[in-house]
Amino acid sequence: MPTISKKGHQMPASPIRKLVPYAEQAVKNGKHIYYLNIGQPDIKTPEVALNAVKQNDIDILSYSRSEGSEEYRVKLANYYKNHDIPITHEDIIVTTGASEALLFLFSSIMDPDDEVIISEPFYANYIAFSTASGVKVVPAICNIDDNFALPSVETFEKLISPKTKAILICNPGNPTGSLYSKEEIQQLANLAIKHDLFLVADEVYREFIYDGDTHYSIMQVENLKEHAVMIDSVSKRYSMCGARIGCLVSKNKLVMQTVLKFAQARLSPPTYAQIASEAALDTPQSYFDEVIHEYVERRNILISELQKIEGIKVAKPKGAFYCIVELPIKNSDHFAQWLLEKFDINGETIMVAPANGFYSTPHVGLNQIRIAYVLNKESLIKAVHILKEALKIYKD
Amino acid sequence: MPTISKKGHQMPASPIRKLVPYAEQAVKNGKHIYYLNIGQPDIKTPEVALNAVKQNDIDILSYSRSEGSEEYRVKLANYYKNHDIPITHEDIIVTTGASEALLFLFSSIMDPDDEVIISEPFYANYIAFSTASGVKVVPAICNIDDNFALPSVETFEKLISPKTKAILICNPGNPTGSLYSKEEIQQLANLAIKHDLFLVADEVYREFIYDGDTHYSIMQVENLKEHAVMIDSVSKRYSMCGARIGCLVSKNKLVMQTVLKFAQARLSPPTYAQIASEAALDTPQSYFDEVIHEYVERRNILISELQKIEGIKVAKPKGAFYCIVELPIKNSDHFAQWLLEKFDINGETIMVAPANGFYSTPHVGLNQIRIAYVLNKESLIKAVHILKEALKIYKD
Ligand SMILES: Cc1ncc(COP(=O)(O)O)c(C=O)c1O
Ligand SMILES: Cc1ncc(COP(=O)(O)O)c(C=O)c1O
Repeated sequence: MPTISKKGHQMPASPIRKLVPYAEQAVKNGKHIYYLNIGQPDIKTPEVALNAVKQNDIDILSYSRSEGSEEYRVKLANYYKNHDIPITHEDIIVTTGASEALLFLFSSIMDPDDEVIISEPFYANYIAFSTASGVKVVPAICNIDDNFALPSVETFEKLISPKTKAILICNPGNPTGSLYSKEEIQQLANLAIKHDLFLVADEVYREFIYDGDTHYSIMQVENLKEHAVMIDSVSKRYSMCGARIGCLVSKNKLVMQTVLKFAQARLSPPTYAQIASEAALDTPQSYFDEVIHEYVERRNILISELQKIEGIKVAKPKGAFYCIVELPIKNSDHFAQWLLEKFDINGETIMVAPANGFYSTPHVGLNQIRIAYVLNKESLIKAVHILKEALKIYKD
Repeated sequence: MPTISKKGHQMPASPIRKLVPYAEQAVKNGKHIYYLNIGQPDIKTPEVALNAVKQNDIDILSYSRSEGSEEYRVKLANYYKNHDIPITHEDIIVTTGASEALLFLFSSIMDPDDEVIISEPFYANYIAFSTASGVKVVPAICNIDDNFALPSVETFEKLISPKTKAILICNPGNPTGSLYSKEEIQQLANLAIKHDLFLVADEVYREFIYDGDTHYSIMQVENLKEHAVMIDSVSKRYSMCGARIGCLVSKNKLVMQTVLKFAQARLSPPTYAQIASEAALDTPQSYFDEVIHEYVERRNILISELQKIEGIKVAKPKGAFYCIVELPIKNSDHFAQWLLEKFDINGETIMVAPANGFYSTPHVGLNQIRIAYVLNKESLIKAVHILKEALKIYKD
């Protein structure tokens, strides 16, 4: 039998995937599951986006330009301008989700054995994109005890080696919900300039900011210019994860030319999805106001309910729609499986994401789970109740 | 300034892309261009596919499963069964175009410095996917003088080294239009088995077969089993290039598990496009009959008109919708640019693809162009007339 590649062996399986067979079996057995494990919001996609697709008058569904349709890019640049981010459509390449933007960027700026410093815990697929590119992840470790605050610049600086090519942050953060201040971003920017590194910010949750805080984008740092790359997506903003449209934004012409070569090789991003994404830019502000209001209420209820459980720790998220919860258990992989296989209250249980997959450091996060608050308040209350009762009888 | 990667430097730019500014300028100057340069058919997408999208009742545009929706995969397996290809939905992973399937496959079965043997000339982006994976392309050279016939098994065998992991063919072929016989495929299959290599067939043009010939898929070779990987796409079959749906098909469980890990990292293929692709499977046979009839007529007119031009060579395509034409010139890059910049007949000119980009061997194909017969007959006749007149006055 011919063999697969070393890289293929090294690719991590999705940390949640292992649980799927247990979830499917539980459903077959008639259990109802509250899915707290994935970032698939239950929020409706804006009508204006859905309608644009329904009313399209395409008769030949053609390739678009590899960098995305000019019309969409121009309108998208305008969206950023309205958010005080001074870019033009030439600084944007439209990708098939933020996922593809990250993959193309990793290949464009890093060779095998190069290093990228990432604040940890982080979005699990950063490991996958690094492995796919042969790149080594160097974690800048954040701690639940200080609310997953960004490590100090000194800590970052100590992690820089001759192989370091980039620092990657996710702001606001999945899985932590942390939000970095203007000062923090500017300090990192200065560090990137000092050591001639790229500063990459995954800002796919940019609109999900609570408590009157504001988001500071790396594209707003004045002196960062050619060192800055922003990753964005329509997936969460408009609850259109299935569209598969994201983008990469940078003022660095060489980066843009290089990413474009990867984009050309795959011909074009999806056409229907670009129609939906362009129309989504006309979503009224009232939509976002309602959505943010809803998420704040969910977060508040979730956190206050969680805090009632003895022996657990939770950092209050300031953005996005996730939080990391530390539990009085030894192995959350096992706990998550047990919840699906062995536990229920009146036929109901919960599915959670073991947090281990969000850390590259071995053995860290084994007593943590990530909860995505993508369910309505009533369901969240029930789900936390199930967690609480489960912890009473669970034995590692 | 931070630097881009070596790999990024090595990535080839699209061979046609260089011409785009000249084409845009020509259009600005009021010239009409016949586009013979890209495989974007002018054929209408089947109504049944377009309507399915228009009539969708999605309210939350969610991620689908990473391997594609089960519904679509089951229906697609059925399509293959109807084409005497015995596979189940478990042998299919839905990808974002054949492009993504190729990229994931290359990473799944090859590490940097591994080798893939490809019959040359080949689809230009095979070089891009190889470069992106750090893989070396070893060409098995075909010749216009014997109609780009597949090289002998002995020729292939001589190219095999300890680093060879796969043989890749495109059947029917872009850019040659050649079609490989059952015997040829079986011989290659035996070679793959003997040397424990993957045999990969890009069959995206499988339905575009002329003159009563039939297509023999590598998934039909009985003893090939775990050595076979097929790449397919809806782009050309249903003239829905902008959907961005393809697939990877294999009975090799380890390959499927590995490709799935890459697929999971990018979350899911586009949802609207899967709706269109699933519905497209209900396209009536009459649609294909008309399309094939149209392409045969186009090919016949194109070839007979080309053959009237003195000093050129053309191989008659048996499938797909491309042909390679050898011209009495030295440098088709220059010629193609000259056609856009300097030449017209009554304000009309043509855009062709320089064939050099379809060869990995340096300096080969410099006197060749690729013509895609994706225009109606009248336009093709005019286009060949322009080519003929241009050659009369063009000087290298
Ligand atoms: C932080 C982060 N980045 C990127 C992505 C990928 O998003 P997309 O759907 O745009 O590929 C996700 C999806 O959950 C995410 O949480
Ligand atoms: C031979 C061949 N393979 C793959 C592709 C990519 O097709 P897709 O649109 O499915 O990514 C093309 C597109 O022209 C092609 O000609």
